[in-house]
Amino acid sequence: MRQITDRELKEASLEKLNADCNEIRREIFSTVSRCGGHLSSNLGTVELTVALHRVFDFPKDKLIFDVGHQCYAHKLLSGRASAFHTLRKRGGISGFPKRSESPFDCYDTGHAGTAISAALGFAKARDLKGENYEVIALVGDGSFNNGLVYEALNSIKILHSRVLILLNDNGMSISPTVGGMHEMLSEMKKTAGDVKIFERFGLTYRGVVNGNDLSELLPALEEAKSLLKTGSVLLHVATKKGQGYSFCESAPEKTHGICPDGKQAEYNKALGEELCALAEKDEKIVAVTAAMTENLGLGAFFAAFPKRAFDVGICEEHASVLCASLAAGGMKPYYAIYSTFLERAFDEIIHDVCAQNLPVTFCIDRAGVSGADGETHQGVFDLSFLSFIPNLTVAIPKDIGEFRAMLRMSASWNAPLAIRYPREGTEGAISEIEIGKFEVLHSSTSDIVLLAAGERCLKLAEEVRSAALNKGIELALVNARFLRPLDGALLSALPQKYLVTLEDNCLIGGLGDAVARFYRTAGIQKEIRSFGYGDAFVPHGEPKALMGEFGLDKEKILKVVEEMYARG
Amino acid sequence: MRQITDRELKEASLEKLNADCNEIRREIFSTVSRCGGHLSSNLGTVELTVALHRVFDFPKDKLIFDVGHQCYAHKLLSGRASAFHTLRKRGGISGFPKRSESPFDCYDTGHAGTAISAALGFAKARDLKGENYEVIALVGDGSFNNGLVYEALNSIKILHSRVLILLNDNGMSISPTVGGMHEMLSEMKKTAGDVKIFERFGLTYRGVVNGNDLSELLPALEEAKSLLKTGSVLLHVATKKGQGYSFCESAPEKTHGICPDGKQAEYNKALGEELCALAEKDEKIVAVTAAMTENLGLGAFFAAFPKRAFDVGICEEHASVLCASLAAGGMKPYYAIYSTFLERAFDEIIHDVCAQNLPVTFCIDRAGVSGADGETHQGVFDLSFLSFIPNLTVAIPKDIGEFRAMLRMSASWNAPLAIRYPREGTEGAISEIEIGKFEVLHSSTSDIVLLAAGERCLKLAEEVRSAALNKGIELALVNARFLRPLDGALLSALPQKYLVTLEDNCLIGGLGDAVARFYRTAGIQKEIRSFGYGDAFVPHGEPKALMGEFGLDKEKILKVVEEMYARG
Repeated sequence: MRQITDRELKEASLEKLNADCNEIRREIFSTVSRCGGHLSSNLGTVELTVALHRVFDFPKDKLIFDVGHQCYAHKLLSGRASAFHTLRKRGGISGFPKRSESPFDCYDTGHAGTAISAALGFAKARDLKGENYEVIALVGDGSFNNGLVYEALNSIKILHSRVLILLNDNGMSISPTVGGMHEMLSEMKKTAGDVKIFERFGLTYRGVVNGNDLSELLPALEEAKSLLKTGSVLLHVATKKGQGYSFCESAPEKTHGICPDGKQAEYNKALGEELCALAEKDEKIVAVTAAMTENLGLGAFFAAFPKRAFDVGICEEHASVLCASLAAGGMKPYYAIYSTFLERAFDEIIHDVCAQNLPVTFCIDRAGVSGADGETHQGVFDLSFLSFIPNLTVAIPKDIGEFRAMLRMSASWNAPLAIRYPREGTEGAISEIEIGKFEVLHSSTSDIVLLAAGERCLKLAEEVRSAALNKGIELALVNARFLRPLDGALLSALPQKYLVTLEDNCLIGGLGDAVARFYRTAGIQKEIRSFGYGDAFVPHGEPKALMGEFGLDKEKILKVVEEMYARG
Repeated sequence: MRQITDRELKEASLEKLNADCNEIRREIFSTVSRCGGHLSSNLGTVELTVALHRVFDFPKDKLIFDVGHQCYAHKLLSGRASAFHTLRKRGGISGFPKRSESPFDCYDTGHAGTAISAALGFAKARDLKGENYEVIALVGDGSFNNGLVYEALNSIKILHSRVLILLNDNGMSISPTVGGMHEMLSEMKKTAGDVKIFERFGLTYRGVVNGNDLSELLPALEEAKSLLKTGSVLLHVATKKGQGYSFCESAPEKTHGICPDGKQAEYNKALGEELCALAEKDEKIVAVTAAMTENLGLGAFFAAFPKRAFDVGICEEHASVLCASLAAGGMKPYYAIYSTFLERAFDEIIHDVCAQNLPVTFCIDRAGVSGADGETHQGVFDLSFLSFIPNLTVAIPKDIGEFRAMLRMSASWNAPLAIRYPREGTEGAISEIEIGKFEVLHSSTSDIVLLAAGERCLKLAEEVRSAALNKGIELALVNARFLRPLDGALLSALPQKYLVTLEDNCLIGGLGDAVARFYRTAGIQKEIRSFGYGDAFVPHGEPKALMGEFGLDKEKILKVVEEMYARG
């Protein structure tokens, strides 16, 4: 697509602007169809973004996208049209705002609820430095369920600064938005009802404006800009997720994130099936999600057990405490969540779930490098941040069969449990699992053993093993399916002198460290080399390529194995 | 104090109840004066607790204390009067609710904002199991700034259950409560103003009731109990922090937490002094706290630089994003916080601060075992959860002088920095510090070197060293003052074969693991033994005794050193 400049937008007729919107929408649709990405949210905010670029003056003014997945039109309008075909490719345009990519991206986002806090920080910095620019936070109604948004609203009166909050209300989180705040917003849309709640927080409220209609949006934004001279403003904008493409409008949850190869996630399907089967037998089983029902595979469970299934909105902390207390009240909760979003509930995992030793099962999806969404979505820290929490068991299935077995085992496990798995997987046998027991997949004639955790690393280990066999080196291979507890008996008994650990996690604080600590503490001499991700954030790209580039490279592992073999 | 039973309370005259309140108040005052603890909040809630025990039926009904530091009267009324003199002592009564201590404590708390979520979990479990009890969350107005409370309020309509929320409004967090919600609540107290915000969330609002007057409180609680039959209720109760003791009433921040030995914390004083001095020279410096101004030593900074000092209330996540964006906007933020409360901002440290590589300095107080507050306040995880975050530097001063030096160094450090330190400390020389450089304090004739991080462990290491010298073993000692980055040059050059690491942190994921990983990766053979806390939550007790009991015992370390020496 050609580069539309802000200058053009500022001078264009309404008709021309609408034509520009159509052009942008077509470009987004065709690029996402090819590269994957967030479709419906970006289609819904085209007019809003065009209007912002017309009314405000970027990058002098600061535009902060909450979550950030709705920034495509902004990228197209800020000098990145010709590069947009590289969307979500390694080295190409990120699907989220990136300061490193353009001065038009002033603040990186990826997780929900940060934009108003971030806007307040910029505004306060501006005030203190005596600078002159406007700060705008574009926040979806889904994020308005998140506690962080509330904390930011609460501090508007503390910080005495001026920001514009654009509430982009499409009635959706990833799942449909839920809860008391959602009902309030819905009522405002219908009757321009009770807006006092925002006024109480020091905001001048305006709305509701049709955010897909420039003729309404432009004057409303101009008014908001003018009100912004004297205080903070909330402009409530109603948009339609997927606007302009009927399939997206009718299936916004399915077209929130698009996977270009059409590949089905498999672990989440197994989660749904197993939980339904367990729940049939055990009335205590309940499922909790923070606005991700379908993506986590819980659709069937929610349909079959509506009274025992809770989507609490984008509230990862609350969901965690809710699980802890459901367990304290005698239930058996399963909390399904993406790896990086679980970081939000870190404190509650420690103090609410594990310090009380309550039987909550965390089903951690998108563990390991997840790919095209980039830094904020790479689940490469979970083994590290779960590794030191007392009372917690951490399991890493080798395939979907083993995942099913772990879920079945969990039903009778009366303590905190975390099971972490990637998006895609292959089926496999469902054998009985014992907590803390590894599995020897191959023994060896050489003095080298590979210890790998999780499906991807076990596959990689098998590849390394085959390649080594071709060179006459037979490696043992162990499925290290528990990070906590480790299989001390098996580790102690391993005859090999050399160990190579593989994990789809950062190296610091993960499996390699745990295995090395075990031997150090036991006073057993081993030579250990560990492979996992290095000490850097992993950007967007294709998962397998990222794995190789950031630390899990078959040839490098093979080289280490050969060196070990040569030393004997 | 004699045990007052709920039966007695249910039958007593108002006069008798008031006499009971006085007796409880005296017992709390005398015990806290001797054992330390939370004074003013407990004095403020005596009548409320007595009224709850009269109106409800514990432990069948469930009473959940937000934060939990206001549970003393409840403990006295639930079979623990004769044991109350052991308050906060190792093996004695905890200063917080503990399921392990009594069936009257149904849910453990310690960090703010969890009680309503927890109440909803219990209520939902009750509904699903067809049980019959009431659930009450007692929540201070300070917690009403916390996002978790909002997330819970938002889900009342999702969960369709019945809970009673007692809003205990004393106008204080630890610092005075601030922000938009506080202003709303204040207005309600004055004019019974706009209560719609609570009704929108599905709560029937009643109040404001004088929570220190049983003649108002008892009928209000009876009414709330009756309303609770059909839905959730919020009863707004005004109490006076420190009620009954004039010094506590006039200085609630000072009497929030009482230290029986009157010892002054020293690191926080240095923080205040250094930040003031830096801020004089650098207009970009700002300070942020989440409702802990005085306890963190920031009182002087807030007085001297009111426009550059922000107390955002109990909002650890928001404070973190605010710091990141202040930095993105060109400021130099210092975020002072207790170690365990920083767990709440874990996701934001990773994605807002470190992924964007922004110059935010985290001043982490109460690191290591902090003592009498127990599990939720022991700062024994921070080295582990900060160890794997890319771009972050983690510093551990050996004394207050070095802490001052690190703060001075931080002024020109343009990236994320965390400095962790305990409450108490000793002064020391202020020498220039270089990032990632350790300090050799003693060289040795033996083949053993101690690597210790932080004041407590360096003191312990000196004690071990003296004791070893008495046995003719001279140990080297290194001040390992950075966890990230380690001093690779120094570690590579250490001539000793044996290393002993000491850290005031859990062993998993801390300094010992980092040092071992360094040598493993570098292919250097060392024999390493690590001392720190084991894989268990550390309960309440006296810090030095807890250190010994949970992993940092001088005699045990000495024994390991002697064994190493004997092996040669």
